[in-house]
Amino acid sequence: MEKLKKYISVKDEDHFYHQGAVELLIFNFLLILTILTIWLFKNHRFRFLHETGGAMLYGLVMGLIIRYVTKPSDVGSGIVYECEKLKSGPSTLLINITNQVYEYQYKREISHHNVNGHQDNSMLQKMTFDPSIFFNILLPPIIFHAGYSLKKRHFFRNLGSILTYAFLGTAISCIVIGLIMYGFVKAMVHTGQLKQWEFHFTDCLLFGSLMSATDPVTVLAIFHELNVDTDLYTLLFGESVLNDAVAIVLTHSISIYSPKVNPNAFDAAAFFQSVGNFLGIFAGSFAMGSSYGVVTALISFMHLTKFTKLCEFPMLETGLFFLLSWSAFLSAEAAGLTGIVAVLFCGVTQAHYTYNNLSPDSKMRTKQLFEFMNFLAENVIFCYMGLALFTFQNHIFNPLFIFGAFVGVFVARASNIYPLSFLLNLGRKQKIPRNFQHMMMFSGLRGAIAFALAIRDTDSQSKQMMFTTALLIVFFTVWVFGGGTTPMLTWLQIRVGVDPDEDLKAKAASQTASNLDKNTTKAESAWLFRIWYGFDHKYLKPILTHAGPPLTSTLPAWCNPVARLLTSPSAYGDQLKDGDTDYIINNDELTENYDSSAHIPVPAQDSTDSIQTPGKEDIQEGDLGLGGYKLQLQHTAGQPQKDSLA
Amino acid sequence: MEKLKKYISVKDEDHFYHQGAVELLIFNFLLILTILTIWLFKNHRFRFLHETGGAMLYGLVMGLIIRYVTKPSDVGSGIVYECEKLKSGPSTLLINITNQVYEYQYKREISHHNVNGHQDNSMLQKMTFDPSIFFNILLPPIIFHAGYSLKKRHFFRNLGSILTYAFLGTAISCIVIGLIMYGFVKAMVHTGQLKQWEFHFTDCLLFGSLMSATDPVTVLAIFHELNVDTDLYTLLFGESVLNDAVAIVLTHSISIYSPKVNPNAFDAAAFFQSVGNFLGIFAGSFAMGSSYGVVTALISFMHLTKFTKLCEFPMLETGLFFLLSWSAFLSAEAAGLTGIVAVLFCGVTQAHYTYNNLSPDSKMRTKQLFEFMNFLAENVIFCYMGLALFTFQNHIFNPLFIFGAFVGVFVARASNIYPLSFLLNLGRKQKIPRNFQHMMMFSGLRGAIAFALAIRDTDSQSKQMMFTTALLIVFFTVWVFGGGTTPMLTWLQIRVGVDPDEDLKAKAASQTASNLDKNTTKAESAWLFRIWYGFDHKYLKPILTHAGPPLTSTLPAWCNPVARLLTSPSAYGDQLKDGDTDYIINNDELTENYDSSAHIPVPAQDSTDSIQTPGKEDIQEGDLGLGGYKLQLQHTAGQPQKDSLA
Repeated sequence: MEKLKKYISVKDEDHFYHQGAVELLIFNFLLILTILTIWLFKNHRFRFLHETGGAMLYGLVMGLIIRYVTKPSDVGSGIVYECEKLKSGPSTLLINITNQVYEYQYKREISHHNVNGHQDNSMLQKMTFDPSIFFNILLPPIIFHAGYSLKKRHFFRNLGSILTYAFLGTAISCIVIGLIMYGFVKAMVHTGQLKQWEFHFTDCLLFGSLMSATDPVTVLAIFHELNVDTDLYTLLFGESVLNDAVAIVLTHSISIYSPKVNPNAFDAAAFFQSVGNFLGIFAGSFAMGSSYGVVTALISFMHLTKFTKLCEFPMLETGLFFLLSWSAFLSAEAAGLTGIVAVLFCGVTQAHYTYNNLSPDSKMRTKQLFEFMNFLAENVIFCYMGLALFTFQNHIFNPLFIFGAFVGVFVARASNIYPLSFLLNLGRKQKIPRNFQHMMMFSGLRGAIAFALAIRDTDSQSKQMMFTTALLIVFFTVWVFGGGTTPMLTWLQIRVGVDPDEDLKAKAASQTASNLDKNTTKAESAWLFRIWYGFDHKYLKPILTHAGPPLTSTLPAWCNPVARLLTSPSAYGDQLKDGDTDYIINNDELTENYDSSAHIPVPAQDSTDSIQTPGKEDIQEGDLGLGGYKLQLQHTAGQPQKDSLA
Repeated sequence: MEKLKKYISVKDEDHFYHQGAVELLIFNFLLILTILTIWLFKNHRFRFLHETGGAMLYGLVMGLIIRYVTKPSDVGSGIVYECEKLKSGPSTLLINITNQVYEYQYKREISHHNVNGHQDNSMLQKMTFDPSIFFNILLPPIIFHAGYSLKKRHFFRNLGSILTYAFLGTAISCIVIGLIMYGFVKAMVHTGQLKQWEFHFTDCLLFGSLMSATDPVTVLAIFHELNVDTDLYTLLFGESVLNDAVAIVLTHSISIYSPKVNPNAFDAAAFFQSVGNFLGIFAGSFAMGSSYGVVTALISFMHLTKFTKLCEFPMLETGLFFLLSWSAFLSAEAAGLTGIVAVLFCGVTQAHYTYNNLSPDSKMRTKQLFEFMNFLAENVIFCYMGLALFTFQNHIFNPLFIFGAFVGVFVARASNIYPLSFLLNLGRKQKIPRNFQHMMMFSGLRGAIAFALAIRDTDSQSKQMMFTTALLIVFFTVWVFGGGTTPMLTWLQIRVGVDPDEDLKAKAASQTASNLDKNTTKAESAWLFRIWYGFDHKYLKPILTHAGPPLTSTLPAWCNPVARLLTSPSAYGDQLKDGDTDYIINNDELTENYDSSAHIPVPAQDSTDSIQTPGKEDIQEGDLGLGGYKLQLQHTAGQPQKDSLA
């Protein structure tokens, strides 16, 4: 008898392991299917479905199958047991059932309205991730990759505009969606679809903030493939990366906004506390992320004589790079800050400093590793979104709320892009043309971040309604807008097939010819930027990387002993070697650009480098949203576009 | 009030997320520390602590800190609640505590003797992985990497010996440990330390099987670094890879061995059922793994005219490769087979076929990716082992049992290596010398697999005792034997600094000179092998890869239309291009070797290829454990060794 019991228990345990395998296998299967489909589509140059859209579609189908093919099988489902002895829910519970003690682990609090509808289908339940997996495992590589692959040169040229869209735009979007939703909620209360207490204005704002995180991954992939105008690409990419960060911190700040008296009344103290929270969390996360980047740069840079450089052990180097970057995320989370923001700026710092110190082997390794992790994580999330429509057990579909959300999202996007573009165009010399604005409006896709924020809390009925609605908006925008990107590009006559380097040269050259006289008048507008660049180039780069001028030439003479200690021996040679200079230019043209005006003699440059002279104006212009270029828009909707769209 | 509650709930939830972050951060921190330490050691050429040993050490210290610094904090710890309404433990439990419904998830069954000692320290509990994470996430990349990085040429030269050590040796080891442990258990029962019913002979055998999985990762790393004799490296590596697979299947078979009547008596039917199980599971897993490998090869090879080859999208290719390899593991698990065995043979197949079809980019990507995953997974496991000594809450330290286990493990290793080496030397022309045997005896380290198998089931008291003992044996062998590898190599006068290719040439050349006349007498012993090689080279390689002769020349004339369809266009060119031939030789010399005796005219070979003629004898010798080489052992303990050990 005892043996038999043991036998059964082994069987059970095996069954348990196999279950875990089955769920992972389903995900693997969906991803394999997605990859094969995308391969097929790429062969036919069929651009209406991006891999994320495909993953979502397959997830949806699989969710449908799991939902209606598997049956609820468990005993004791939906029955609530009374427990008088306890006052609150402990994290583990030991329960004696027919003389056998079982250990149960706390999972979540269930609202009363969910108890009855609580279907205990174990398959559905097992296909449901813990939301913390999104935040701790799947999002960090995506966000880090975004930061790491930021094209700094173009990004900084448009930094002012990007910051405006990201901060001001996200705030506008959040408030507009919040207001519209509040209107709809009021209407719903009027028509009796909703009880008053279920939806406060803060809830509407929360929904607004989580729906403000745009994720135009589909659009950007197509832009990248077709080599769409670099400025448009950069504006969109920069905005989407930063507004994720802003939206996450905003959501966090709103969720802890707690007016003392009436939740619907405006409480100035609580409001300012939330604003303070927002700024504090953002700044703290930024600091945390960049310091990890700097630490990595320092470690990878160590050139003490007694030590072999770390880059001679590429595996250790890659491992350290990976672990420190992930630690940036985790430390921020552990400190109560926002890991996503930290990991984003960690990525930017790593790309700016650490990347230059890595061995060529590690450069490639880290790039490919993060690219691959990004690819997998993104597809897993989109796949899971598809699954969630059918496997999530507490959906609340409220047509009016969904309609309101769609209206809110589009109006909010419009009141973000158009007014801000108008304002920016007042300052920018190189205006953001109408068709770019339309394209940006069109690219307001919602994706992984909005989903992750919405699924983080689905305990109350209002949160469940938000989650369902967010999911539908993601589906709609990814499939419809994502699929419509190529036709839209054609229709808006946005030029494709642009070589980013050529583009920059052309723009810079045309600008030099026409605007040389305006340099002095605009120079001041960017003073903050120039100070930063000077500091970065003269002190930070030499301390943290092998690039840049030796510290001995940038620091005052009396600092020479320290400077010599801190400067990499290779820094002295670098500025004389043409090959190396060229390399630094390609990687970080801005720094090199500054070079020409710094007090280090630059050797006579060959033809490749001759673009540096106009490039210099880039920085002197500064462009805190005030870039001074005339757009050389070519209406080449005809021949070259056909080539690549065929 | 409601707001306040909400506020608290948000806080709680945040706390929950941060907790997850804290635990991951601890692991990250330990791994970073390990990497930095190893970097330091590598700089000082200090080889007494491998990274895995370091990870374990830091894990141990961290476990100590967590154990004695954090305090049990939870309410309701150790109290068992009665529940009369239920008959068995459902997978989720809804419990009403003071009018709030909480959901609890089933975690495990607890034996009665554990209930009282059940300390509810939430930090300790959160640092404890679900054992399924080892099996589904951490082990597959390690095992796959072992298969993928197998040096086929040397492996096949020693295949017979490796198979003997792995299958026969593991069986011997399991039985010897089982018998010795049974003796000790009897003694313990006599002295009253143990009650009779707690330890059956099958339990002893189970312990024997899980302790038979050797994991000389430390030793192999040092061998690799010092370029130790390739045959020794291959014997040890091959044995350890395969004996993991054997030990896992063996453990599984023993755990489901269930005699009908008396658990201590021998039940022939049940025994043969277990043997059948073993063979069935092993063969099934092998088939599952290799078919996934073949499918990947086919997909990556598709050269239909309408399709761009997959290798033009390295990201998709890498993704597919990764996902299909992991699916091999998961499908085997889901089908009730052994995933580890499947993923091992999937790795071997991928390396043999798929690797040749990959784009150069993907070749590097996959290699680096799996290398990196192996590195991380290995260090996480060893780190966790260190932690487990203090954070696992149900250790049972029984000195006599532990002593018995140490004795058992060493006696078993000795009765595996020495008798089998003696038997193999009867057949092998190139004997396994005494010092190699001593080194193999010494390299019987236990590691990740033994640990993972032991932690899989820790419900009963006997299993907990086994787990504790296994953990201690891992610590001891990794630190003492791992650290002693370099002195041992010197002491045993095993030559280091061997170039594997040169070594093979030298051995082959000396063998040709002396043993040419024996070729015909030994040729038959390898007929099975030659048939397989012929089949592989003539049919499988051309169908699955771009290498090998075109099918049109190997298949009969009437098959020509099919052959032409299946052969890669590049196969026709390959045999004429010297560079390519050379490449294939380097990657897979055996296949190319066979070439010389196949009926395809081989172009005149240059000096690099001239070693092929002696190389041909390699296969004709076959060496199913019967290699025909005289060992050219050089006693170079002096000068060259000093160089590399300095």
